Amino acid sequence: MAESSDVPAMRWWGWGDSARHSPLPAHVVSLLRDTVGVSDPPRPPVALERVRLERSTLGEASVAELRAIVGPEGVRDDHYQRVLHAAGKGYPDLVRLRAGEPEGAPDAVVLPNDHAQVRAVLALCARASLAVVPFGGGTSVVGGLAPLRGEHGAVVALDMRRMARMVELDGESRTVTVQAGMRAPALERFLASRALTLGHFPQSFEYVSLGGCAATRSAGQASSGYGAIERMVLGLRLAAPSGEMDLPAVPATAAGPGLRQLLVGSEGTLGVITELALRVRPAPRVRVYEGVFFESFDAGMQALRSLAQQDAAPDVARLSDEQETRTSLALAGSGGLKGGLGRLYLGMRGYRDRGVLAILGFEGAPEQVAGRRRRALELVRRGGGLAVGRSPGEAWLRGRFDAPYLRDELLTHGVMAETLETATSWSNLKRLHDRVGRAIAEALQACGTPGLVMCHVSHLYETGASLYFTFLAARRAEDEIGQWRDVKEAASRAICTGGGTITHHHAVGRDHAPWMRAEVGSTGLAALRALKSELDPAGIMNPGKLMAPSGRD
Amino acid sequence: MAESSDVPAMRWWGWGDSARHSPLPAHVVSLLRDTVGVSDPPRPPVALERVRLERSTLGEASVAELRAIVGPEGVRDDHYQRVLHAAGKGYPDLVRLRAGEPEGAPDAVVLPNDHAQVRAVLALCARASLAVVPFGGGTSVVGGLAPLRGEHGAVVALDMRRMARMVELDGESRTVTVQAGMRAPALERFLASRALTLGHFPQSFEYVSLGGCAATRSAGQASSGYGAIERMVLGLRLAAPSGEMDLPAVPATAAGPGLRQLLVGSEGTLGVITELALRVRPAPRVRVYEGVFFESFDAGMQALRSLAQQDAAPDVARLSDEQETRTSLALAGSGGLKGGLGRLYLGMRGYRDRGVLAILGFEGAPEQVAGRRRRALELVRRGGGLAVGRSPGEAWLRGRFDAPYLRDELLTHGVMAETLETATSWSNLKRLHDRVGRAIAEALQACGTPGLVMCHVSHLYETGASLYFTFLAARRAEDEIGQWRDVKEAASRAICTGGGTITHHHAVGRDHAPWMRAEVGSTGLAALRALKSELDPAGIMNPGKLMAPSGRD
Repeated sequence: MAESSDVPAMRWWGWGDSARHSPLPAHVVSLLRDTVGVSDPPRPPVALERVRLERSTLGEASVAELRAIVGPEGVRDDHYQRVLHAAGKGYPDLVRLRAGEPEGAPDAVVLPNDHAQVRAVLALCARASLAVVPFGGGTSVVGGLAPLRGEHGAVVALDMRRMARMVELDGESRTVTVQAGMRAPALERFLASRALTLGHFPQSFEYVSLGGCAATRSAGQASSGYGAIERMVLGLRLAAPSGEMDLPAVPATAAGPGLRQLLVGSEGTLGVITELALRVRPAPRVRVYEGVFFESFDAGMQALRSLAQQDAAPDVARLSDEQETRTSLALAGSGGLKGGLGRLYLGMRGYRDRGVLAILGFEGAPEQVAGRRRRALELVRRGGGLAVGRSPGEAWLRGRFDAPYLRDELLTHGVMAETLETATSWSNLKRLHDRVGRAIAEALQACGTPGLVMCHVSHLYETGASLYFTFLAARRAEDEIGQWRDVKEAASRAICTGGGTITHHHAVGRDHAPWMRAEVGSTGLAALRALKSELDPAGIMNPGKLMAPSGRD
Repeated sequence: MAESSDVPAMRWWGWGDSARHSPLPAHVVSLLRDTVGVSDPPRPPVALERVRLERSTLGEASVAELRAIVGPEGVRDDHYQRVLHAAGKGYPDLVRLRAGEPEGAPDAVVLPNDHAQVRAVLALCARASLAVVPFGGGTSVVGGLAPLRGEHGAVVALDMRRMARMVELDGESRTVTVQAGMRAPALERFLASRALTLGHFPQSFEYVSLGGCAATRSAGQASSGYGAIERMVLGLRLAAPSGEMDLPAVPATAAGPGLRQLLVGSEGTLGVITELALRVRPAPRVRVYEGVFFESFDAGMQALRSLAQQDAAPDVARLSDEQETRTSLALAGSGGLKGGLGRLYLGMRGYRDRGVLAILGFEGAPEQVAGRRRRALELVRRGGGLAVGRSPGEAWLRGRFDAPYLRDELLTHGVMAETLETATSWSNLKRLHDRVGRAIAEALQACGTPGLVMCHVSHLYETGASLYFTFLAARRAEDEIGQWRDVKEAASRAICTGGGTITHHHAVGRDHAPWMRAEVGSTGLAALRALKSELDPAGIMNPGKLMAPSGRD
């Protein structure tokens, strides 16, 4: 795993660095036992050697041809590598992996070194009818990495980790060009040494590749300030089976339809993004993250809207609903998990059944932050909000990438922990929140596993915002995938019929593909399929993702 | 012309309201005589009845079918209407119209009332092999409205003027939905009554339709603050020959490739935009437009870059190069054209051969404008700039839509007046400016008509800006179109080989179509053609625009 990557390998059965272990504190286990129930004894993942994989169907001739392109070390088909690339990190992925029963695995993992090798691999795969799953950080939570072979005889994962080099920094134009396999932390370290930042911090930050962020139309936690990846991408290079597209960095252009924005969000179905140019900004010299308390979720939403519409948006804004606030405070309750929240909790005990907590984070140059923060806090006050100091903000900042680690622990304790998200206009936000929350709660109830359903508003825009749902419930023994599917289906239906988009930043992958007809209509889907036929005539690129096969959506 | 449009009819041979007449002041004629030469006597356009059109080739059966869809008044084939729709307002369009020799004219003008009628018209045209040129405000300067019939037997202009209704205002979400034929001034009047604005003010503002702005990926003069149309469009409805696409307003989505951004800039080649949802903002309560003087164009560019990158960008920013500054001041010289500039000129006579003038415009809430302006003027001062007060800014604001009127007068006096534009990164801006300016000057020289070549920087982004060139020369008798083509070719080549985009906000149309291969590559072009084949299988939509026919680019 040493090749030109300084990212620690992900746990094959879960999230993050296997050296890190964060067991649930006793009070959290106790809280879970009282609310959704936990399994006793805990259910750890099976041992790696017990993971069942089909034998690789990739012929020796194909392996030899692939090795001729990427070098002998660039093709892997050992058990560990195949398991590592067998899935992303969605809830059903983890359930299956932990049980040692992934749906499948790539027949080989291929690691190209440069754009030309990617093109050569795609040409070979098209000729040999091998499906290709582009693999960046491996963090998809929507089935984007499922090793589906479609109509093809075998499937390879195209792991971009070796293509992680800096191509160019144009400091004057605040633009950086990188190979697509570069990880977000590596870029941030490079930029930090020049007092710059990209400002893209999805929860998966520690592992994501920049190509993956672009391919999945990712939005980071600080997108209210820095914008989502779609605002950062200035240029792209795509290797497609039918050719290549090289769209250079331009600040803006009116030269026809937005092809850059067509590749952003293409999820490996049109080709492989091999290089991208991104807008960067000065590294913040000041960071203020703080907590604000509102009497109700409604009041909080009104206040966030005023921030977004009155030139006072923080870089990070997250407003928890009543249930999420209650649960966060309870989790932090005895001070174990998050000291700051613990102290806050003590001071707020009286409000815990109705108030809601927001985290606002401001970053930038001192004067700029001061002015924006002053305007924001004034609007918060006018909206009835109460600033409660920095400790909740700092606690959030410390723990901002922790949720996926927590999820692994919850699974071990027999708790299903899943998230899903959408976005809609301000005028529809509360209605959609209630509708989706109710759909999730009712579906969990119908599964016989009533749960905790929580939500926060984040990613502010002038015209609307995102809703991010988290739900916890007991894992339904024997049919955990069916349980997940029932809830996912109910939530997706509520989103699509309620005026939301099926995804604000998790992407489509396999899980949302059946909803693309609702999202873009049959003509929209036909347009995407026409594009795919042109760029990928053999249909080898990431089959089964983004667009369900014709007639199946 | 009364049908649901309050826009005065355009002069058929030129720009704007025929009731308005703005003859060139004597000192301007004298200046032109001394620099590029003028024709004596002036060359007015021919009379309307002398414009030569081929007889309409549209059969009576087709006319009857079209009337059955849009009503008897909805199909026009009289001489005046055909001439009015025979071209846009580019320099070659005007040269040909004024001579009474347009390249062609639509065989009929069709005026649909709603989305369903547009769909029915497209279905009929696909069946009957009639080309369709969508026609909004009629302001294209890149040949986007040329009545080309491609492989088809006839061509109709689809004039959207009757589809000009407000659909919905969602004030809470700052979103307005309008029919695509609504003109920008009508929308601004509606919004102003609610203290809102779209903030989209292209030079063609008085006539443009909002659908046309979206279809051509337009950027307004205030795009540094409000963003170009691509940032304003939240949702779109497209009627295509093969179906319809209804992409609702969402603040953001990660549901696959950006189809909204694919329709923005589609220039009527994929279908007709019939409705669009746009982000709106509070109407500015304060407007400060002012002049700033820099010692050199280089110094001015550095300062503008600092504004754009340090959170101090004005809403409008325009920095003239030495030649444009000199010419503007000279035109204003005797106080005739622009009083403010005239006074400025008197004060600056000593600097006229080296200094450059910038206009900065700030709009918004009082405190917000004050803070941003203070930061901006501090950066200007640090960059060696000298604030010279509001009169140049206010003069610019008064005359911001006047240039096309002036162009008509220049043509009458035998002067070619043409503009073209591009955008590039800050690090390449000066180099591209020099390269394109030199290419234009040399091409004019080679035509035997040495000219004045001027440029300004505008439309600021963090990563770069636009360059907008204006050039004046004597019209080459007998071969004005050849003269124009030589210069256009030279400029376009300099842009494409110099790292610029072929257009920042004029769009592609017919004039830039040959350069799309340089812009997006052959795979990009193939992708666009695949899309077109899917949405417009009969190839009736705006033939010859955006994508040159396969093999001809």
